[in-house]
Amino acid sequence: MSKTDPGRFFEDFRLDETLAHATPRTVSDADSALYLALTGTRFAVNSADPFARAIGYARAPLDDFLAFHIVFGKTVPDVSINAVANLGYASGVFGVPLYPGDTVTARSAVIGLRENSNRETGTVYLRSQGVNERGETVVDYVRWVMVRKRDKRAPAPTPSVPKLPPAVMPGELVVPSWLDLRGYDRALAGARQGWSDYAVGERIDHLDGMTIEEAEHAMATRLYQNTAKVHFNQHSERQGRFGRRLIYGGHVISLARALSFNGLANAFRIAALNGGRHVAPTFAGDTLYAWSEVLDKAELPGRSDVGALRLRLVAAKDHPCGDFPDKTGEAYHAAVVLDLDYWALMPR
Amino acid sequence: MSKTDPGRFFEDFRLDETLAHATPRTVSDADSALYLALTGTRFAVNSADPFARAIGYARAPLDDFLAFHIVFGKTVPDVSINAVANLGYASGVFGVPLYPGDTVTARSAVIGLRENSNRETGTVYLRSQGVNERGETVVDYVRWVMVRKRDKRAPAPTPSVPKLPPAVMPGELVVPSWLDLRGYDRALAGARQGWSDYAVGERIDHLDGMTIEEAEHAMATRLYQNTAKVHFNQHSERQGRFGRRLIYGGHVISLARALSFNGLANAFRIAALNGGRHVAPTFAGDTLYAWSEVLDKAELPGRSDVGALRLRLVAAKDHPCGDFPDKTGEAYHAAVVLDLDYWALMPR
Amino acid sequence: MSKTDPGRFFEDFRLDETLAHATPRTVSDADSALYLALTGTRFAVNSADPFARAIGYARAPLDDFLAFHIVFGKTVPDVSINAVANLGYASGVFGVPLYPGDTVTARSAVIGLRENSNRETGTVYLRSQGVNERGETVVDYVRWVMVRKRDKRAPAPTPSVPKLPPAVMPGELVVPSWLDLRGYDRALAGARQGWSDYAVGERIDHLDGMTIEEAEHAMATRLYQNTAKVHFNQHSERQGRFGRRLIYGGHVISLARALSFNGLANAFRIAALNGGRHVAPTFAGDTLYAWSEVLDKAELPGRSDVGALRLRLVAAKDHPCGDFPDKTGEAYHAAVVLDLDYWALMPR
Repeated sequence: MSKTDPGRFFEDFRLDETLAHATPRTVSDADSALYLALTGTRFAVNSADPFARAIGYARAPLDDFLAFHIVFGKTVPDVSINAVANLGYASGVFGVPLYPGDTVTARSAVIGLRENSNRETGTVYLRSQGVNERGETVVDYVRWVMVRKRDKRAPAPTPSVPKLPPAVMPGELVVPSWLDLRGYDRALAGARQGWSDYAVGERIDHLDGMTIEEAEHAMATRLYQNTAKVHFNQHSERQGRFGRRLIYGGHVISLARALSFNGLANAFRIAALNGGRHVAPTFAGDTLYAWSEVLDKAELPGRSDVGALRLRLVAAKDHPCGDFPDKTGEAYHAAVVLDLDYWALMPR
Repeated sequence: MSKTDPGRFFEDFRLDETLAHATPRTVSDADSALYLALTGTRFAVNSADPFARAIGYARAPLDDFLAFHIVFGKTVPDVSINAVANLGYASGVFGVPLYPGDTVTARSAVIGLRENSNRETGTVYLRSQGVNERGETVVDYVRWVMVRKRDKRAPAPTPSVPKLPPAVMPGELVVPSWLDLRGYDRALAGARQGWSDYAVGERIDHLDGMTIEEAEHAMATRLYQNTAKVHFNQHSERQGRFGRRLIYGGHVISLARALSFNGLANAFRIAALNGGRHVAPTFAGDTLYAWSEVLDKAELPGRSDVGALRLRLVAAKDHPCGDFPDKTGEAYHAAVVLDLDYWALMPR
Repeated sequence: MSKTDPGRFFEDFRLDETLAHATPRTVSDADSALYLALTGTRFAVNSADPFARAIGYARAPLDDFLAFHIVFGKTVPDVSINAVANLGYASGVFGVPLYPGDTVTARSAVIGLRENSNRETGTVYLRSQGVNERGETVVDYVRWVMVRKRDKRAPAPTPSVPKLPPAVMPGELVVPSWLDLRGYDRALAGARQGWSDYAVGERIDHLDGMTIEEAEHAMATRLYQNTAKVHFNQHSERQGRFGRRLIYGGHVISLARALSFNGLANAFRIAALNGGRHVAPTFAGDTLYAWSEVLDKAELPGRSDVGALRLRLVAAKDHPCGDFPDKTGEAYHAAVVLDLDYWALMPR
């Protein structure tokens, strides 16, 4: 029995199998502090216990994307060690908040497999779920990833591609009954505008830029126990596609979300991840800027205090976003690195 | 209504107005651990709960300058996003200790305004206050900062410059009644000398040097939720005054204070910030050294266990401080980056 | 009385003297999170409270090497500020786990002294001990270090070299009675193989590589309050032996241990440090790889649930370890930087 795990190759995945991922993790205040030190996030609900309690939380929860990255990281050793590219996300729903002291475990189901025509790689579709120690779902999402084959001659599985919705439906969003935004203090949160102040089609330039250092993205990615080699090994990446380490796409998401505070300060909760694409790689030394577009607005059943905004978050590197760098057809502006589609909750 | 906040310009400030700053923050052990990892500080009272309890603290408090930086950081989005330079500090008094679990909020009053003769900038004087969740003052200080005007033609306010004392008076220092230095263990603290061993005029070379990396100062500054662009955005700073990111002056203060442990190990508490000047910019790659001068000594009313030392802390870059690089008249030695004047408490 | 401490030189040490080291430290969850962010470690017992509780721990303890480094760091200001090289370790025994909330203090006894023939340096042998606030031993180990003399003409002490065993005996390992591996979940831990699956002589290539940045090793080393100048001061090291900062050898140990997860995931507890040598210096930019050899196996008295593996952990830089870079006689392969010999506990 080999003692080391080289990771799964495409032909190792079976449709409908379930993967129970290793390395449970008890999170703490320190995860929030490190996340803050690495991203500069300022959303008040994740920053202060009294603010969070005033709207029904037990205390300040971990940032939603921090929770997502911790769950995602657990899937990497089983799923994407031999990945060529992380292709997309869909159907991500955020459930219960993740609090300091909670323990996260993760599992995934293989929901689709399709070999590529070159027979050297294939796409694996997975539904992954992170749960707390009470078995409650913290986040549940689909991603698909291109994985190398160990052996080009290995037989291809019957192609199976799941039908994925373009977005989570507003009725599927988790809006806890304990959540009560009457206690939400917009002055403390840092902006007056609420859900009713945003219009579909509106675009917001988030103004600020943030430069990324090697130590920063590596620390963030290790904090998530994400073991994908491309982020950490300069010795091997020197020979690789880019000649250098690639920044974990999730760190780019987190930085773009932190930048989006300036314009979306009251988008206090990520409710769903509708989709997302890492359009281009990001490297240490790059400076990220971001802009957002309001794609949709939804009232929430039985709630007059809170609404949902469907937002598109676009990050660009070394390019301020006053001109809203975008895509034309399928071709993206050369500076764009991230195109993310999510639902956020906001006081009305 | 614009969704993003470009920050205030000089003409946006009004004399006597109060600014309630956003983003309350619940601090934790993690802030202390990160501060330690970023500065290397060794003051025992901030390092160990039993040491702190033995002299009356509830537990190890956060480092005083860490508390200061968190409060300072909250003022930045409202005050100094468009600042050209942070000009000085005065009248800083440290109040109750900041403990893990406490929540800090900050507010500032505009106490002075004076447009500069070039009409392009002006100086804003503010008294800022950080309070805990019980409304107790953690730190209260004055700073003045040069802020750009949005429009050169905007009318100048009536000049108003507050009269600031050269130093906090010893009688104004907060020396809690619960503080009892009979339990102070100098062996554990790392040095035998106490208040009575220091003489006015004495100079101490702190010997050690510390090199700063981009990731380090950026992590520290984000931890304080300080959003000043000059610290984070290499893409824009490349075009700026220095061609690169500027290190937050508070990080320089913290490193100099950490270096001062070697010679001032028993200066366990910063009691007041009399004044301070960031003499020259500091950049990643610079190595900081520091020296101190005893400016004054004060007995404290009714206390035989503890005294106050007024200290001048000078930091220099790429220049060991055995020759005590100083100023001659108004001109500083080329290596000096910081000249800080503070009161510290020390067992007698 | 000089206020600053230049550190001890060789002639300042006396045989049999005891050094009570300064700066007690209360550890927290944040130490574990930072250690994770800096090393990427994945051992489940240090990652999740429920996992640790299931085998008898009160909660997830700090990583054993993290505890070691914190204790080691406390000895540096008294022992190795003026050290030329850290020469070796022996007789290291890990005692009670170190939990968040515990306070560590350290003391050392000088157990040997031998001046070198050049009269410019000498070797100091110390037994150091880290204890928690209840006086229980966390770790107890011997190290020897080459220290500069202040004055070449200072008289040499009578040479005294302690007799050190090549390894800790299995019967000396601390295997707590509360430890009960029946609750150990190998799926959660990440590997199926247990003690009985390993054979003496077996070699394991840990596959992965990790590149080190300046900010990372400096943050780790400051977290341990280790003040050795060579790790932090680029201004002085530019003139030094290597022209640059040297990475703390303990950080190399931690990274190699973290890499060893892939192949030794169930080696959940470091029980003893038999010996170790920092074969060559490591610098920022280096990529570490590691391999292990099973040196010995031991059953433990009265325990059917857990066994001990004596392991040799070899780290190499910029050299994948599929060819197991090793030593030939006394000469090491040019890539090797660490050769560590330790006992680990593993479920049988």
